[in-house]
Amino acid sequence: MKISARGESIQDSPIRKLSPVAIKTKEAGKKVYHLNIGQPDIPTPPEFFEAIRSYSEKVLSYGPSDGINELKDAMINYFKRYDIDLMRENLTITYGGSEAVSFAFNIIGDPGDEIIIPEPFYTNYNGYATMSDLKIVPVPTMAETGFHLPDISEIEKKITSRTKAILICSPNNPTGTVFSEEEIRSLGEVAKKHDLFLIADEVYKEFTYDGIRHFSVLEIDELRENVIVVDSISKRYSSCGARIGAMITRNKDVMVSVLKFAQARLCPPTLEQLGAAATYKLPHSYFEDIKKEYQLRRDTLYEVLTANKDIVLRKPEGAFYLMAKLPVDDSDDFAKWMLESFDVDGETVMVAPGGGFYSAEGERTDEIRIAYVLDSSKLKIAGKIILEAIREYNKKS
Amino acid sequence: MKISARGESIQDSPIRKLSPVAIKTKEAGKKVYHLNIGQPDIPTPPEFFEAIRSYSEKVLSYGPSDGINELKDAMINYFKRYDIDLMRENLTITYGGSEAVSFAFNIIGDPGDEIIIPEPFYTNYNGYATMSDLKIVPVPTMAETGFHLPDISEIEKKITSRTKAILICSPNNPTGTVFSEEEIRSLGEVAKKHDLFLIADEVYKEFTYDGIRHFSVLEIDELRENVIVVDSISKRYSSCGARIGAMITRNKDVMVSVLKFAQARLCPPTLEQLGAAATYKLPHSYFEDIKKEYQLRRDTLYEVLTANKDIVLRKPEGAFYLMAKLPVDDSDDFAKWMLESFDVDGETVMVAPGGGFYSAEGERTDEIRIAYVLDSSKLKIAGKIILEAIREYNKKS
Repeated sequence: MKISARGESIQDSPIRKLSPVAIKTKEAGKKVYHLNIGQPDIPTPPEFFEAIRSYSEKVLSYGPSDGINELKDAMINYFKRYDIDLMRENLTITYGGSEAVSFAFNIIGDPGDEIIIPEPFYTNYNGYATMSDLKIVPVPTMAETGFHLPDISEIEKKITSRTKAILICSPNNPTGTVFSEEEIRSLGEVAKKHDLFLIADEVYKEFTYDGIRHFSVLEIDELRENVIVVDSISKRYSSCGARIGAMITRNKDVMVSVLKFAQARLCPPTLEQLGAAATYKLPHSYFEDIKKEYQLRRDTLYEVLTANKDIVLRKPEGAFYLMAKLPVDDSDDFAKWMLESFDVDGETVMVAPGGGFYSAEGERTDEIRIAYVLDSSKLKIAGKIILEAIREYNKKS
Repeated sequence: MKISARGESIQDSPIRKLSPVAIKTKEAGKKVYHLNIGQPDIPTPPEFFEAIRSYSEKVLSYGPSDGINELKDAMINYFKRYDIDLMRENLTITYGGSEAVSFAFNIIGDPGDEIIIPEPFYTNYNGYATMSDLKIVPVPTMAETGFHLPDISEIEKKITSRTKAILICSPNNPTGTVFSEEEIRSLGEVAKKHDLFLIADEVYKEFTYDGIRHFSVLEIDELRENVIVVDSISKRYSSCGARIGAMITRNKDVMVSVLKFAQARLCPPTLEQLGAAATYKLPHSYFEDIKKEYQLRRDTLYEVLTANKDIVLRKPEGAFYLMAKLPVDDSDDFAKWMLESFDVDGETVMVAPGGGFYSAEGERTDEIRIAYVLDSSKLKIAGKIILEAIREYNKKS
């Protein structure tokens, strides 16, 4: 029995692949600070659970394939805070942001078609590209320039007759970069000029620091036909295990098609949609303390890490990740070594090696992604452990 | 902006496509008996909701990509009732049976590869074949023989160098047919001989009547490497809105690959998995009354419909569907006409036209699928309305 080429070639999760090693590390009695996965420690709003607990139907039956109106309406009101006008028919509720990516990839291209993505990028785009048999054409961005976009001509250069879309994620996973209005508008002009879809993963929309404002592709009226937004409550309302996201577009052909894909998998889970609707009804002030907390963590970690002048790291503007270029040759080996052979007073750190966030293997073997999902005092310790680990690691080799 | 060929060609749901018509019918004041969709009216076990209500973690965080062990263990115990030995590493928890179909399709073949399916078949296989760019090669089965399999040579004849799998659904949606142990074993021999995967959709496993026993492909030890089972709690525990299913296989290569697909979409919803685990812990006697109820419904509907000798209908052995061949030319038009232009004392019936359950358009335009998801007294009325509708419809044309 031979499995398919796509089944063979689909990428291992670089975020989860060291998990078996970490389990052994912990079994051996070491404490591990988990900075490898974007699992926030912020409590899920109690309103989420209360809405689910108050469900009183006798039969948990199929819901609408595109999601329940209670959630759609709550989302529409949420977007009004940003002067983004949406209607129910612009929204498809999905199984997390992941399914929105999957639907978008299936709809924008056929096998062999190309999608341009600035790299490093969220590793699961690789998985969905494999499933949809799309080819990812990367545009490199660099630690030295805070992973901002290169000159727009560098992107335009990558466009071929098979290019169907450009995808951006802002605030960015894995880099924390928030693309400026100017950067987004330039991309939009290129998309418009070449008749391409512009897919924007905006799941970290709320998490921007130093007063920087997230600029959404939904704000550009001329791109109504081009824009597809991937959205999710996982990070916004710290409910990763709920699996509720959305695909947002004003393009009618896309909506006709996505409804058919949505019907094929019947409907999103009903209870979680009710929980999600309750979170979207929270006042906007809900985000204030959370943003302050994340900003404090970013500042703490940034300060600790940049004490080593050989680490290349610009202060990221958003999300809760940073991508740091380390003075080590092989961050895959370094991350594994930290778990297996290193500790400071019985404690060590788990990070995600950077290589997995690039489309080709063997790129940027000196970068690591850190998710700052622990409180500042722990981050301070974890950051110092990383610095000490770099010293030790480079001594041994 | 042009969308992809697959985005254009993916099939409309034949089960849901008359819904806008039905809405107008109801707005016009008519009562509609919904026999078009397999949404059971059986209450979801209260244990499902209780398990969810008692969740007490503060953060609803990501779970394991392949599902939580509490659910896996409950499923393993459930399968022991059938002497089917499974281990945690044979189970991947999915978003409903749908995602298990999607994973299986992605893993067994690459774009252009073929999968043999007896038709009529569950319409969403079409959707997933489109998404995976697999070609469905149908094997016709007939109302006259209760939609049982033709001679195995008819199936073997369809095998080409691109054939990667045979898929069966037993008890069957849309026909209610339960394939015999002999039929399943013959298919298994062919799969073995030609090195094909045998995918079995067994989500209706519990629903067999007249003492007939469901024979699972998991019971054939020689097929350990070939077999992939699609499973779900949607019908088994009347929880369609929960979206919890599973892919079951003992093939290690398939499991390695499916974990990577599962990681790409992170994890199934945590709360529903806890609810599902609670239902799987119910004693097996839970099914007794439900099976009796469905058998009574089947008998009622069968008796009413076969009063018209021009209807071809063998008594189905399982699930809660039947596929009837009617003395009408165009069941699409007939189903729409019943909603728009016909009623008996202000009441009419919604059925699913049969054509949508075939791979090619224009096949079997005289068949309808009925889901017997209402109680017997309602089914009796609905059945009589259908008979009266056939008389009227044929008078007018």
